[in-house]
Amino acid sequence: MRLSRYFLPTLKEAPSDAQIVSHQLMLRAGMIRQEAAGIYAWLPLGLRVLRKIEQIVREEQVRAGAVELLMPTLQLADLWRESGRYDAYGPEMLRITDRHERELLYGPTNEEMVTDIFRAYVKSYKSLPLNLFHIQWKFRDERRPRFGVMRGREFLMKDAYSFDLDEALARKSYNRMFVAYLNTFARMGLKAVPMRADTGPIGGDLSHEFIVLAETGESAVFCDRKLVEMPAPGADLDWDDLQALVDARTAMYAATEEMHDAATFESQTPEADRLSARGIEVGHIFYFGEKYSAPMKARVAGPDGQDVNVHMGSYGVGVSRLMGAIIEASHDAGGIIWPDAVAPFDVVVINLRVSDEAVSAACDNAVAQLKALGKDVLYDDTDERPGGKFATADLIGVPWQLTIGPKGLADGVVELKRRATGEKVSVPLAEAIERLTA
Amino acid sequence: MRLSRYFLPTLKEAPSDAQIVSHQLMLRAGMIRQEAAGIYAWLPLGLRVLRKIEQIVREEQVRAGAVELLMPTLQLADLWRESGRYDAYGPEMLRITDRHERELLYGPTNEEMVTDIFRAYVKSYKSLPLNLFHIQWKFRDERRPRFGVMRGREFLMKDAYSFDLDEALARKSYNRMFVAYLNTFARMGLKAVPMRADTGPIGGDLSHEFIVLAETGESAVFCDRKLVEMPAPGADLDWDDLQALVDARTAMYAATEEMHDAATFESQTPEADRLSARGIEVGHIFYFGEKYSAPMKARVAGPDGQDVNVHMGSYGVGVSRLMGAIIEASHDAGGIIWPDAVAPFDVVVINLRVSDEAVSAACDNAVAQLKALGKDVLYDDTDERPGGKFATADLIGVPWQLTIGPKGLADGVVELKRRATGEKVSVPLAEAIERLTA
Repeated sequence: MRLSRYFLPTLKEAPSDAQIVSHQLMLRAGMIRQEAAGIYAWLPLGLRVLRKIEQIVREEQVRAGAVELLMPTLQLADLWRESGRYDAYGPEMLRITDRHERELLYGPTNEEMVTDIFRAYVKSYKSLPLNLFHIQWKFRDERRPRFGVMRGREFLMKDAYSFDLDEALARKSYNRMFVAYLNTFARMGLKAVPMRADTGPIGGDLSHEFIVLAETGESAVFCDRKLVEMPAPGADLDWDDLQALVDARTAMYAATEEMHDAATFESQTPEADRLSARGIEVGHIFYFGEKYSAPMKARVAGPDGQDVNVHMGSYGVGVSRLMGAIIEASHDAGGIIWPDAVAPFDVVVINLRVSDEAVSAACDNAVAQLKALGKDVLYDDTDERPGGKFATADLIGVPWQLTIGPKGLADGVVELKRRATGEKVSVPLAEAIERLTA
Repeated sequence: MRLSRYFLPTLKEAPSDAQIVSHQLMLRAGMIRQEAAGIYAWLPLGLRVLRKIEQIVREEQVRAGAVELLMPTLQLADLWRESGRYDAYGPEMLRITDRHERELLYGPTNEEMVTDIFRAYVKSYKSLPLNLFHIQWKFRDERRPRFGVMRGREFLMKDAYSFDLDEALARKSYNRMFVAYLNTFARMGLKAVPMRADTGPIGGDLSHEFIVLAETGESAVFCDRKLVEMPAPGADLDWDDLQALVDARTAMYAATEEMHDAATFESQTPEADRLSARGIEVGHIFYFGEKYSAPMKARVAGPDGQDVNVHMGSYGVGVSRLMGAIIEASHDAGGIIWPDAVAPFDVVVINLRVSDEAVSAACDNAVAQLKALGKDVLYDDTDERPGGKFATADLIGVPWQLTIGPKGLADGVVELKRRATGEKVSVPLAEAIERLTA
C-alpha cells in the first residue's frame, strides 16, 4: 500500500478528552474517529488491526470445535420476554420501535436468539455437543461511554454458545473455551489471566474473566504470580479431556476486586508470589445450565428417548476492546508497538528522497520483494521530511521499518529498525529482508 | 468440515410464505433463518457464501484503488440534518432515541458520515482522488419486506464514496467503479448489465444500475442483446483511462422499466438484438457532484490555493442481496448450483457406509488429500441413507460431489459428479482429484 494513496490521517495531538493512552494513540495514529458518544468509525489502519484480531479469535474458536454463524444486530423484544430479561435489562439496552410499532432492540448479547435457533432445529442429543459462535456488532447504551473503544457503546464482540446434554458434558464445553481463550490471547502477545468471576446479568454458577495486566487497567486484580507466567496450552491437545489443564490454572488464587478476599489470597499464596496489579477484562465465560433452555423450552431427546433441557454456556471476547488492551500493554513514548500477529502491516518501507529516481527504484524493488514473500507492506512514498516519516512510523507501530535513502544507497545498505527494541542495523537489502522474514 | 459436527439444518419443505425460489432454497438449504420481518440470521452455510461474495467485492474495490474503512451502524440524526435528508428520508429510516434522549438512526447509507470524515482530515487536492468504501450492515425499514434476503430490512451493503477536485476527475472515479462492478459480478458467474438509472433519494445527474438477468427478476428490463454478451474488461487495464470501455457499454440501449422508452429502444436497436427480460438490481452507482460537499462544506484547496467543494460519487453493491440473485440465476429442480467462486465448499465427500472401516478410511484419505490441495471440503460422515445424502448435496449446491462406497472401493473407483451438469464418472481417486483440481 502506497501511503500517498492511502488514508492515514494522523494527528499531532490527541483531543483533550482522550484520557487513557490507548485512546490517545488510536486517535493520533488515525485508527478511529468518534461519530457519536461511544460510537466509532474504524479508519483504514484501525480496521486492519481489527480484522487481524478478529481472525485470530475466529481461528481459535474453530480449532476448539465451534461453528460460525452470524446473527443480526436487531432482535425482537418478544424473544427477550421469553427469558424474562427484557424488563430486567435496564437502560443499557437500546430499545427501538419500527414503522409498524413493533418493538425491537439492538442486541447487547445473544443468549435468547441462539437458544431460539437451537430449539427450532435440534431435537436429539445425537447432534450434541454443539457450540455456535458469531462475531457481530453489539450495542450497550453505557451511561458514560469513555476510554475510546475500551468502553464504547457500539462494539464488536465474539460470542459463542454451547449446548450439551448434561452438566458434566457442558463443563467439557466450558473447558474447551477456557483453553481456546488462553491460546487466543497468547497469540496476540497478551498475558491474559483467568479469574473466577461474578456471573452478573448473564446468570449461572460458574464463570471466569480473562484479564490482561496493564498499569492503566480499569480494576485492581490479585493473583499468584506463577499463574501469570504459565504458558498457553497450545493447539496440540486432547480437546475432550482438558480438566487437568483447567485445574492447573484455577487452583491458584486469582480474583478481581469484586471477588477478592484478602485472607484467602494470603493463605493460598506464598508472599513472594502475591501480585497486586491492575487489569483489563478481555473475555468472560459462563456456564449457566438451564437458565435459558428451561423458560425457552430448548429440549432434546436423550439416549432414553426422554426430552431434557439442554445445558448451556456462553463465551464472550471483546474484539474491538482488545485493540485498546493491546495498546495499553504495548506502547512507548513514540507510539504503539504492535505485536507481530496483529500489526496492521508487517513492515513500512520509508523512502527518504522520493525525488531521487535511484532511491525510488530501490524502494520499489524492496516493496516488490517483500510482497512476493507474503509480507503486508506500507510504502511511505510521500514527500514528507525524514523526521516526520520516522515519527509516523513509530506512532503507528509497524513492527519493522526499512529505510532507504541516497547516502545508504551509495554505500549499498539500507537501515532496518525493529520498532519494539529500537535496534537499528545498516545492512545490504538482501540481509535486511532475510532478517525480517526470519 | 465433518457434517456430523457441523450445523446444517436443512428442511424438507420451505415455509409457504417464501414466494421466490432463492428464498425457498436458502431456507431449505439451512442458510438463513428469519428472526423478524426482513431480519435474518445467517446460518453457517449461508455465512460461508456471504463471506465469499463479500471478499470478491472487496478485492475488486481495492484493485480499482478504493481504500477500506468501517463506519458504525448507528449515526447521529444531526449529521443528516446538515444535508437536509433527515426530514426528507421518510419512514424507511429507522429512527432511534438513546437513554440520554439523543436522536440516532440506523444508517441506510453513509453519504453524510463519509463526507464528515473527509472534511475533518482532507484539506488539499493533493490528497485526491480518494475513494473510501466499507462493507457494513444497513437498515431500511421497508414497508413490506419480502423475498428473503432480496428485500430484507437489515442487509449487508458495500458502499464506496469518491472525492475529486472537479467533475472531469470525478467521472474518472465513476468509470473506475463502473469497470470494477463489471469485473465483480463476472467473477461471481453473473451477467450483470449496466443500465442508465434514475438517481432517486441519493441525488445527482449520472447513475447506472447493474442488473442481473433472471426470469424471476423484480422488474422488466430492455436492452441490446449484444450488451449482455460483452465480456467483463478484466483486471489488466489502464485505470486512469477507462472512457472507451465505459462508452462501449453505454452506447447500446439498456433501461429498466422506469427509464424505458420504446421508441428510442426500437430506433437504436436492430430488431434481432432487442431483448426484453426481467432483472434484479445488484449494484447502483451515482455521480452527484457537490450535493453533499456544498451543504456540508467539504472543501479542499485547489492548485491555485482557492478552496473548492469536492465532487463526489457513491457506489453500492447489495452483498446479501447478491446471494439471492445468484440463486435466482443458478438453480434447478434439485436445488442450488453455486458458481465455483462463491460456493460454500469446493467439494462434498460423501461416505456411503460410515460403518465400513475401509470406506471411512478411504474418505479420510480423500478429505486429507483435497485439504492439502487447498480445497474447502465438506465431509458427509453422517449415517443418513445414500438417497438423503445425494439430495442434500444437490440441494446445497456444492460444485463437486465425490462419493465413496463399498462397491466402488472394491473396484478401485470413486464417483465424481459435477453438480452443474449432472455429469458423473467412476474413476480412481487420484483421477477424480485431478479432475476437480484441474
